Parts: sequence; C-alpha cells; structure tokens
Amino acid sequence: MTVTAPKGFSAAGVAAGLKSSGDPDVAVVLNHGPDDAAAAVFTTNRFPAAPVLWSRQVLAGERARAVVLNSGGANACTGPEGFADTHATAEHAAAELGIGAIDVAVASTGLIGVRLPMDKLTAGVTAAVKALSDDGGADAARAIMTTDSVPKTTVQQRDGWSVGGMAKGAGMLAPSLATMLVVLTTDAVVDPVVLGPALRQATSVSFERVDSDGCLSTNDTVIVMASGASGVTPSVEELTEALTAASTDLAMQLLADAEGSTKDIAITVRNAASVQDALTAGRACARNNLLKTALFGNDPNWGRVLAAIGTTDAAFQADQVDVTINGVTVCRGGAIGDPREGVDLTGRAISIDVDLKAGAEQATIWTNDLSIAYVHENSAYST
Amino acid sequence: MTVTAPKGFSAAGVAAGLKSSGDPDVAVVLNHGPDDAAAAVFTTNRFPAAPVLWSRQVLAGERARAVVLNSGGANACTGPEGFADTHATAEHAAAELGIGAIDVAVASTGLIGVRLPMDKLTAGVTAAVKALSDDGGADAARAIMTTDSVPKTTVQQRDGWSVGGMAKGAGMLAPSLATMLVVLTTDAVVDPVVLGPALRQATSVSFERVDSDGCLSTNDTVIVMASGASGVTPSVEELTEALTAASTDLAMQLLADAEGSTKDIAITVRNAASVQDALTAGRACARNNLLKTALFGNDPNWGRVLAAIGTTDAAFQADQVDVTINGVTVCRGGAIGDPREGVDLTGRAISIDVDLKAGAEQATIWTNDLSIAYVHENSAYST
Repeated sequence: MTVTAPKGFSAAGVAAGLKSSGDPDVAVVLNHGPDDAAAAVFTTNRFPAAPVLWSRQVLAGERARAVVLNSGGANACTGPEGFADTHATAEHAAAELGIGAIDVAVASTGLIGVRLPMDKLTAGVTAAVKALSDDGGADAARAIMTTDSVPKTTVQQRDGWSVGGMAKGAGMLAPSLATMLVVLTTDAVVDPVVLGPALRQATSVSFERVDSDGCLSTNDTVIVMASGASGVTPSVEELTEALTAASTDLAMQLLADAEGSTKDIAITVRNAASVQDALTAGRACARNNLLKTALFGNDPNWGRVLAAIGTTDAAFQADQVDVTINGVTVCRGGAIGDPREGVDLTGRAISIDVDLKAGAEQATIWTNDLSIAYVHENSAYST
Repeated sequence: MTVTAPKGFSAAGVAAGLKSSGDPDVAVVLNHGPDDAAAAVFTTNRFPAAPVLWSRQVLAGERARAVVLNSGGANACTGPEGFADTHATAEHAAAELGIGAIDVAVASTGLIGVRLPMDKLTAGVTAAVKALSDDGGADAARAIMTTDSVPKTTVQQRDGWSVGGMAKGAGMLAPSLATMLVVLTTDAVVDPVVLGPALRQATSVSFERVDSDGCLSTNDTVIVMASGASGVTPSVEELTEALTAASTDLAMQLLADAEGSTKDIAITVRNAASVQDALTAGRACARNNLLKTALFGNDPNWGRVLAAIGTTDAAFQADQVDVTINGVTVCRGGAIGDPREGVDLTGRAISIDVDLKAGAEQATIWTNDLSIAYVHENSAYST
C-alpha cells in the first residue's frame, strides 16, 4: 500500500520511455485532502538539481497537493533549460489535476547532465494522472527505482491514523551513494508549522545516519504530505515518532539494497564527548575505503578503524580507545586486544563499536562494504 | 644509486624474515657526515605508530645519523610494548653502528595492530649494518616495498651536489592509500635550521597533493639527511628546488604504482579564490568514489565532478563552473557543454580541469581511479 495506505492519497506509476529498459519511470502521488500540509528536506549539495530548486519554492509555503517523480534522468546540471523543463512538468501535472503548479513538487533521479525528453515525460504524467488509484502506491514505488533491486515501502499504523512511505536509492540523504528520493504520507491532522521540524528530526536520525559511500547527490529529496483525512490529531511527539519509524524502516531498506554491497555495517561510537563527535568518528569509518574493502574481505582489520578515527577532531586519547567488532574487543586502549581470529564476519550484519572514553554521548552510522560489485556497477552506470 | 647517490651515505637492504615471502624487509641508511643535519615530516594521524613517536623525538634535535626501516609490520597500535620494540631497534642499530640511539630514526610499514618479531628484526638490523655499502641504495629501496610492484628511487644532480631518494607506498603522505615511507639524502652543506622548512615546502606541493584514496596512514614518514660531504652550500631556494624535484619525482612514481589503479588523474582547479579552495575542491573530487569508479569505466561522468565540489565550501557560483576532461569542456556554466562522447579516456593519464571563476589561484591534486583490483587487493591485505 505504501504511500496510499493513509487515507486521502492516490498514486500511480507508469512507463513513459525515460528508461531504455521500458520499466516504469514516472510516478504521481496526489493528496486529496482535506488538508494539504507538506514539508521537505533537500540535498545540501551546492549544485541542486532543477527539481530541487523548484520543489524548494513549492515547499516554502509548507503546502503541497502532489508530487511528480521520474527516474531515467536527474535533470541536474542542466542550467536554465533544465529548470524550465521541471517547471513545465509541474505546470502540465497541475493542469491535468486541476490544481496550481505551485502545489506540485517534482523529484527526479538518474544520470546528471542530460536533458529530459519532455515529450515522453509529459505524456507519462498524463498517463499517470489517468492511472491514479487508492491502491497505486506499489506502482509508484516501482516507478522511482533506478539501481534498486527491490522497491522500498513502509506503513506505520497508529491509533486511527498512519504514515506510509516509499523510497528509492541505494544510499542515503546526506551524503548519498546515489540519489535518494522519499515520499511520506500521513492522514493525521497536522499543523504545517510542526510538520517540518518533525520531518527534520526524523531524517536526522535515520537517512542522515546512513552513509553508504560518502557521496552527496544533487537530487536527494524527502517530502511528506499530510491529508488530515483520518480526523485524528496526534501530538508532536507521536507524529515525530511515527515519521522516525517510517524513515528508519526505509533507511534500513536502502542500506540493505546498497549498490553491490555484501555487508550492512553499524558503526556505534560510544562515550563520546558529544553526539557530533560520535557522528564525526562514525562517518570517518564509514568513508574509509581501506576499512570498507577489508570488511568486504571478511577481515577484522581494526587498525583501519583507528586509522580512520585518527583523522578526525573528535575528543579522545589515543591510548584509551577500545574497538569491538561483532562482539570481540580486538583493540583495547588503542593497542592489541583479543585475537582477531575470534571475529566471525561471514554474515551480512557487522557491528563495530568504538569506545572513545571521552564522555557520555553516542551515535550510530550505518554503512556498507566496498565491494567489487560496487565498482563494477558504478563504473558502468551511464554507459 | 638512490639514497647513496649523494656523497657520504651508505645503505643496505636484507631479508630478515618479517615478510612471509622471504623478500628483503629491513633497510638501513647511514650518514657518514661530516654533517648530520636532518628533518622529517610525519603523519598527522592521531594514532601515530611507535616508530613515528620515536622518530619525532630523534628529529626534534634536527639531527640524525641513520634510519632503520622495515616492511612486514607497521608496529602501529601496539601500545607501550610496541614503542619499546622501536626503542630497542634503535638501541640495537646504534650499538652496531657505534653511535647513539637518539641519532637513529626508525620507520615501519605493514599490517597495523601486530607486534614485530623482534628476534628476526634485530638479526636483520645486524645483517644490514654488516652489508652497508656505498652503492646499497637499490637494495634498501627494495627492502621497504610492500604492495609496491617496483622500487621507487630518484637522483637529482645539481652543480657539485645532489639529492637522492627512495620511497615505498602505493599512495601518499597525507592522506595515504597505504603507508608512505620516504628517505631523501643530500651531500649539500645545509644549516639544520633551513632543512626543515625546505622539506615541508617540498612535501606540501608533492606528496601532500597526491590523494589516492583519502586514507591517512598511521606511519607516513618523510625524512631527509644532509651529509655536507660535497662541501657545496646551495642557497635555500636551490635546496628547496632540488628537494621539491626529488619529492615530485617520487610522488609521481607512487601515483603510477598505486594499488590496483588503471588511471593517473590530475585534477586542476583554476581561478579559485585561494589555493586552499583549489585544494579543497580538488581533494573532494579525488575522494569521490562515484567519480573514481566512473573514470575506471572510461566514463566522462562530469556530473560527478560537480556533485563532488558541490559538497565543499570553496567559493564559486553554481552557474559559473566549467569542467574540462582531457581537453573537452563537457560542462559550461554548471550545465551541459560539449558532447561527452568526444572525451577519450582510454589512456592511463586523465586531466580534469575545473574552472571556478572565483579568483586567480590554482592547484593540482593527483589521484587514481577506484578499480576492481583496488578492492581485491585491499580486501585480502591481511589475510
């Protein structure tokens, strides 16, 4: 059911020919109301794609009625012409839906630096609007896939209201392996003023803590729309909890399907002086190619954990740091701990615990290994 | 001739059994004087290896008589016991050479987090001291190799004096693909006070601008010793020029032999507001796995260049940036330029020029592609 699980939403996904494979590539998600509160989080990349520039304007009003999404082309680094293409897409969808263009957000994913074939895209939008359905969420989730091997969807049922969602991407919001697009829907009654902060809180502990390969996309977008159709008004805490649960569920699905990955790696940094220190140290590990290749090779090479966090400014004393990999404390006090031969890395899940002994805060960053398949997939992406 | 090309130096390389392959793994370079001026640059990693901690003390006096180097073990993250091992190595070499331990720098490379077999190492040092020879530079260069496929050496002949050098590593000083060890020698007469600044200037524009995979080693060491045996006193500018030429020659050899690489990539950022901005933008490209895999696949995916520099705080306007790959300006004004099909990436050398149009400064960062062989080699390193 995905984005159409909550009341008040319809969706569709169609094949418009943007993908040479002929797979579905255009999706529309429509909010039937009665409310139209919306919020979004976008990439911080300084080359935001045309749809990001457009959707920022839409969401500035904290309202949206529809989202048009396409795979098969990112419409990034395409200049004023690319922005005009996005604008025309929103205008076309709005005309088909009988609403204003400023109520229509747009999100795109695919190759950077290539114009979209607008004839195919607008025909696809027309077809998608015609196909809008109360149970079209699954079709929409399929239409936004790029290198994803499976669609990613979630439903979080609460007391009389719910949150639904879909995501694409083999990575994360910030930074990103490849573009991440997420649409969340809820039938809760939500004051637009609280929706944005709730979404930012939810993404900050979910998508923003997945760091598959340290690369920040030009197109990352997470958008939430609230229809109010349930008639239930959850508290801010309840809303934030449900959005966080939906975002975390989708983030873990992105992690599990990351391009070419063979490992899901949770790096937890404990006893840090601050959450920021924990995140900095965890992210340094998540971005260390030597550590990531070692884990691909089932090698508990803990020296590469220390070498990675040794490049950060996180507070710690070098002779105090412990590292535990899958339950074995292979490094104690910055030196040799229990035998590395005791570490079993044959499964997909790997936990790396770093104890900085510098405070009382902690955080977890999720990442993947760096595999031969990752290189293969990304070396052949646009050709 | 390498480190023994300048007058006043002898060297040796022997097999001590630290490497399971039986290849040479212990080297000694001795300065016979009359001078003993020395300087070094070390890793900035906050987990410096035991030999780095020791050699910093040696070099604090701006003098050194000998360097003992070993491959087959980094002696990093080995705690107080590891430091004692390095100290004992210096003491043993000093006794064999009839000098003080504080005159003996030590450098190690290999796996992190494993103690060195001291019986083998000290026997190797004894053998190396016995084998010291005026033409032992080539043997020493071979003994410090790890994943290097060829030894790296240089000789810079000047008017009556010279600089010699050897290097190991499939990467760079800071940050590092794998540990980089460099020994430079000169028979120039050099005031110890000017040697350090000259070395730092030389490394800042050579080793520190090679960024193969963004990983900073615990052991990186560049050390220079001056014997004064030529009797010639070059100017500071002449000395700096020769050290820079030697360092650049060795840095380019490291780049060409980087683990698993198939491309040598020069990223030049022009018209930056500052050299720091140019370096920041260039380094962001050098560390972007999506760009590096694209180049491995001969794909001129310029969008990934923009996506990489879009994560930095370098001064630029997104709609002003041009990107030229191997002579083809594929991106103009942050948007689509000449057809990417015109870019020939089949050779090993790739040049990426980024024009920020934000000032008058520029800098070049050298890196490699991210290849399947890189992943293979580094996933199997310690096992």
